[in-house]
Amino acid sequence: MQFTSPEELRSAIRKGEFQAPTSGFAPGFIQTNLAILPKDMAFEFLLFCQRNPKSCPVIDVTEPGSFVPALSAPTADLRTDIPKYRVYRDGVLTEETSDIRSLWTDDMVAFLLGCSFTFEEALTQNGIPMRHQQQGCNVPMYKTSIPAVPAGRFQGPTVVSMRPIKEQDIVRAVQVTSRFPNVHGAPVHIGNPESIGIQDITKPDFGDAVEIKPGEVPVFWACGVTPQAVAMESRPSLMITHAPGHMFITDLKSEDFSVF
Amino acid sequence: MQFTSPEELRSAIRKGEFQAPTSGFAPGFIQTNLAILPKDMAFEFLLFCQRNPKSCPVIDVTEPGSFVPALSAPTADLRTDIPKYRVYRDGVLTEETSDIRSLWTDDMVAFLLGCSFTFEEALTQNGIPMRHQQQGCNVPMYKTSIPAVPAGRFQGPTVVSMRPIKEQDIVRAVQVTSRFPNVHGAPVHIGNPESIGIQDITKPDFGDAVEIKPGEVPVFWACGVTPQAVAMESRPSLMITHAPGHMFITDLKSEDFSVF
Repeated sequence: MQFTSPEELRSAIRKGEFQAPTSGFAPGFIQTNLAILPKDMAFEFLLFCQRNPKSCPVIDVTEPGSFVPALSAPTADLRTDIPKYRVYRDGVLTEETSDIRSLWTDDMVAFLLGCSFTFEEALTQNGIPMRHQQQGCNVPMYKTSIPAVPAGRFQGPTVVSMRPIKEQDIVRAVQVTSRFPNVHGAPVHIGNPESIGIQDITKPDFGDAVEIKPGEVPVFWACGVTPQAVAMESRPSLMITHAPGHMFITDLKSEDFSVF
Repeated sequence: MQFTSPEELRSAIRKGEFQAPTSGFAPGFIQTNLAILPKDMAFEFLLFCQRNPKSCPVIDVTEPGSFVPALSAPTADLRTDIPKYRVYRDGVLTEETSDIRSLWTDDMVAFLLGCSFTFEEALTQNGIPMRHQQQGCNVPMYKTSIPAVPAGRFQGPTVVSMRPIKEQDIVRAVQVTSRFPNVHGAPVHIGNPESIGIQDITKPDFGDAVEIKPGEVPVFWACGVTPQAVAMESRPSLMITHAPGHMFITDLKSEDFSVF
């Protein structure tokens, strides 16, 4: 399927014509994680994100009660424009759905947080391939011993994603991802997994294990799973997120988010 | 007076031994603007800052009720460690004081926002002098026709500061300040003041006029006066800020805030 614009792709999602993971679609445009929380948690969650900008890069936040991300996609409806949602009640996943209109209430605030698709595209364009894409699986993610900076009731470990990078490409990988501080930015760690509390690199906490070939080094970036995992641990009565890989497509151009 | 550390300088301020503007003191450390608001405005104000990162770069936010900026200066007390405060009631300046302990209540949240001292230091180190420092006056600031992105009840124009820069130094000035996105970052405009709604460059809205010499171009940066002006227009029953030029000194090193 070809789509000429983010709006067209969102429209197909809304009509139920597109229900797949969004990786690789709408290249050049920012895709985001979604977290919908009650208004009484909004300040603390926004503060948590502000304090942990590498794992929780805020792209847009709706006005309380509004399901329109006015700054990143003013024609979108966050209740219908994501291919698959997850609904958590008291911190427990209770259902997956493609439409949350019946769940939406006036005290909800939607947070859109940057996702790694943006910098993966930049790395690939710079001749640095993504092993998980080559293997056709999900990126491996790990809980680390790096604590996120707490805010109010939100606290927990930083979660990272890992990509094996050839030794001679590491400098370029740092440079390329440093240009995008609003979508996780530079790596948080290069090399020995144990230094950041990862005991077994072959057993990720989320996603799938990937092969690390001779001459490659594991490179770790802060991961958007961090804020969701942390918010979930606070067990809000109702929290709605995207389903993994099924992201929200904004109208924002990736290149507008680079600092150089 | 010489101070060996930010903590020593804050201690002198707390004891009333230092009551002057802080420009030039504690070089290499981040100084910040202060805005104290009631908790019920905190989410909207933080959202306003998040939506306007160039004019409102958030350095630290206290937990509601706490006067300790735990992440930027854990030994500080925000009620006593600024040389001069301004108190606004219903949006009107009612007093200046050096101690706000009697005004502090449990529903207050303190916001520390980045200030231009950091990038001025970097520009000076790169051989680009600051005209207002040469003239011994305040930097000129102007209201522009560039609207800040609103959030809830917070809205208003972007305020900019202006520094005349030699034509041959403009590229370097952009590069140097781009390194510091968390303290206003790159300029928002270079050249013709009228393009951003400034009718008379000799009549700033805040601060003092400075000379623009032949071969120099006015360069404009987003200014920390923006969030204060905007918050004040919403007329909170009580709002406390620093007095102009009398900033809060953090323990954070400026260089740690550079992206390259």
